[in-house]
This record gives sequence, structure tokens and C-alpha cells, in this order.
Amino acid sequence: KVIWTVLVTILGSASSLPVGDDSVCTAEELAKYRIIFTGKWSQAAFPKQYPLYRPPAQWSSLLGVTHSSDYSMWKKNEYASNGVRDFAEKGEAWVLMKEIEEAGEKIQSVHGIFSAPAISSGTGQTSTELEVHPRHPLVSFVVRIVPSPDWFVGTDSLNLCEGDRWMDEVSVDLYPYDAGTDSGFTFSSPNFATIPQETVKEITCSSPSHPANSFYYPKLKILPPIAQVRIVKLKKSQLGLSAPFINLPAKSNEIIDSVS
Amino acid sequence: KVIWTVLVTILGSASSLPVGDDSVCTAEELAKYRIIFTGKWSQAAFPKQYPLYRPPAQWSSLLGVTHSSDYSMWKKNEYASNGVRDFAEKGEAWVLMKEIEEAGEKIQSVHGIFSAPAISSGTGQTSTELEVHPRHPLVSFVVRIVPSPDWFVGTDSLNLCEGDRWMDEVSVDLYPYDAGTDSGFTFSSPNFATIPQETVKEITCSSPSHPANSFYYPKLKILPPIAQVRIVKLKKSQLGLSAPFINLPAKSNEIIDSVS
Repeated sequence: KVIWTVLVTILGSASSLPVGDDSVCTAEELAKYRIIFTGKWSQAAFPKQYPLYRPPAQWSSLLGVTHSSDYSMWKKNEYASNGVRDFAEKGEAWVLMKEIEEAGEKIQSVHGIFSAPAISSGTGQTSTELEVHPRHPLVSFVVRIVPSPDWFVGTDSLNLCEGDRWMDEVSVDLYPYDAGTDSGFTFSSPNFATIPQETVKEITCSSPSHPANSFYYPKLKILPPIAQVRIVKLKKSQLGLSAPFINLPAKSNEIIDSVS
Repeated sequence: KVIWTVLVTILGSASSLPVGDDSVCTAEELAKYRIIFTGKWSQAAFPKQYPLYRPPAQWSSLLGVTHSSDYSMWKKNEYASNGVRDFAEKGEAWVLMKEIEEAGEKIQSVHGIFSAPAISSGTGQTSTELEVHPRHPLVSFVVRIVPSPDWFVGTDSLNLCEGDRWMDEVSVDLYPYDAGTDSGFTFSSPNFATIPQETVKEITCSSPSHPANSFYYPKLKILPPIAQVRIVKLKKSQLGLSAPFINLPAKSNEIIDSVS
């Protein structure tokens, strides 16, 4: 039986930790989940300026963290950290990993880091496992949209705990965000730093309100989701490459057809 | 207590390691390691055709597996699997993940999968954790060289067990391999499938023996290592974002200067 090595890292657990969360999680000690990220960035759904060459539309590695409400990886309408900037602009994870690590060291607000491989096309899947803890029930992650100036998708502090139990499955549609650090308007815009830096903003079909914007579709009310994430609880007997994973199709693109 | 540090630095191919694949490992139940991959693909060390644009020199996500000698992710002079081909050509991990999963299901030869984020430049670092088991003490991984036709670096069945103990640290220099599936000669060659497929071959400064080859340096005896991997055992108290990690520099590139 295969066991997926969870890229989870546990920081000192015996000491008393600040419980800054609004709702206290009283679930059982730990829970393991499989996280499945599905790119839905097809040319059919997003015809405008769809990147076909050098590079074609694709997704970076996924970098995520399980944490308490004392830590925030990124937040809408707030300034991106240097780590999120490096990741959103270049897919470079190191500074962000260091930031997470330091948050774990200093304020014990982090339970673990996880990562999943990149996807080489706009539609496709990637997956890994993660572990949450009653004091660290929140899941945040980022995946860079490639190519793009500083655009990404992800979740900010998605809570997997509901009172005294862990959710069995969570599925979230994802929409593009602008990290506020590069002023490019289109997928293949050259680098042009935003000075002063702006806050993280959701990109919609009407905002930024400029026809040059790659996501500007004035006839739409809302963009279709550009990606989706599904987080499925693993049963105790499902350590590893378990049912949620092996039920996926052999080719990561096949599921797209059945979904859309 | 005496702590043995086994520092193995191998000049030449990682696949010709003197690994005792078939020697029984009688070490304690499980061991956790931090794996730190360092790209050393600088323009100074590899001036020929060094990729500066679209895309510049960089490294894909790292995808690895801990396993027994009944599984092989890739092997010099043998044919690459479809999964390794997809990964080496495009950085697409899905088929390779499925292959690993199936090997785990069918012949229980796999303990776990691990992955680490991509590196957005030729020199830089990425890192994650992995777990080995006495029946699955071998570590194989691949990282795609980007851009390239189907070139990668990695280890094939690196054994972390030595008799009844787990090694404390292993360090291996890495050299480029050709997956044998794409006939491009240079980093930015267009795709051109190799039919029939060839076997996985180490790329040296004289082989392929053609001046057009990006790694052809006729005045060198051997190429400098294009990357390095360090695998450091975590102490029981170091679950997680632990000492081997936090001792690394804030910027992943800084270590390059001190090493070379």
C-alpha cells in the first residue's frame, strides 16, 4: 500500500498556543486530506489572448500551508508579502517558504507546508496531501497563472473544521487575483513593477475596467471559474494514495471534459 | 551519542552509485529527511547557449518517490516510462504520479511520493521532506531542466539505509540526462519526437559528440555539476520546519556564491 509522504511539518506542539480563531475548533486531534487542484483555463472558456506559445497557458507548482488565524499567506485588499510577490511574479517559492517558516517559529501559527507539482497546460490536475490540526485548521495556498504579470489563484484561510468535526469534502471554485506588484495588463506583458505597490485585487470580467485586460469580457456578468480545488478527507484506512486519488482518470485532462 | 555523518559525494552519474539495493535494511522503523535541491546551472559554469529569455534557465517542480528495489522511476540505459517522458519533456507530473501509484498498488514497492516547488532561475534552491521505511529505503526523483528537449537531473534508487542504520546526511552532485524521447540538441530546440525511442543517457561534455549540443565543451574533461541534492536526516525533535531548513539563507541564491 502506498503512503504519500505528506509535506507537513509540525512545529513545537507541547507549549501553549494562542487561540486567535473566532470559532474554536474542537475536532479530533488531526486530520489528513487530499487536495486536488484542477485547472480550467481552456481556450474555449477564456478565448481572449489565450497564451499558446512560449510559454503556453499553464500553472506553476502549488504551494500551501495549514495554519491558525494568526497567520495569513495572502488576503484580498491587503498588500502581498515579498514571498507572495516572488511567487506570483515568477513562481519562485523560496522567500514564501521562509516567511511561512518564520511565522511558524515566532508565533507558532503554522502547522505545515505542502506542495504539488506544476501543470503543463491550462487544463489539468495536480494533487498532494495535507494535514490539519485543531489549532491550525485553515488552508491557504497559491498557484501562479503562467504566463501572467503577477496573477494567481488560491484560497485564503479556508477552514476545514466545523465545530467538533472535520469536513469530509470541500470544493471551491477559483478566480484570478492580481498580487498588486506588477502593472502588466495582459498574460504576456513585460515586467513593469507597480510603484507604489497596490493591494491584492480580484480580477473580474469588468475590473480592471480596460479593454486591454486579458480577463476583460464586457458581455459576461462573471468570469467562469479558472480553476477549482477539491479537498477530501482521508479515512484512517486511507493513508496514502487512496480512493480520492485512484479514482481520478489516467490523463489529467480527461476529467475536464466530464466536468465542463 | 556518536552521530555518524556519511557524506557521499559522487563524481559521475548518480545511477552508478554503489547502492546496496538488495542488501536488507534492518534500520529502525521509519526515518524522516529533509531534501534540499540546489540548482547550479549558472551562465558562468555553462556559458554555451545559456537560456536568457522565454523562458530563462530554470528548474521544474521536483517529483520524487521512496521505494524498494522492485520499483524503478528511471534508469540509465533503459527506456523512460511515459510518465518520465511527459515530465522530462513538459514538466507534466500527472502520468508519472499515476505510474508510481500503480506500482504501489500492485507490487507494494512504493512508500511515498514527495514534491517540491519549482525554481525560477538556474541557480537557486527548493526543499521538502520525505519519509523512508526499511522496506522502502531508496530515493528517486526527477527535476526537468527548463528549457530543454527532454533533459533532467535526479537520482535513481539512492539508498539511505546502511545495514541497521539510516544515514545522517547524503550529498550527491547531479549531471544532466537525456530521456531519449525528444531529438532536440539544444536547450531551445523545437519538439521533435525520437522514433524509435532511445534509452536514458547521461549527457556529458563530449556526448552527444556534436558541436551543436548545448553541453558540448570539448576542452573540458567533465562537466561541472549542474545541480546538487542534499538529504539530511531529521531528528525526532525536528519534526517539520527544522534546523536543516532554517539554517539556509534567506535568499536561495546566496548559498550558490558560498559553495562555488
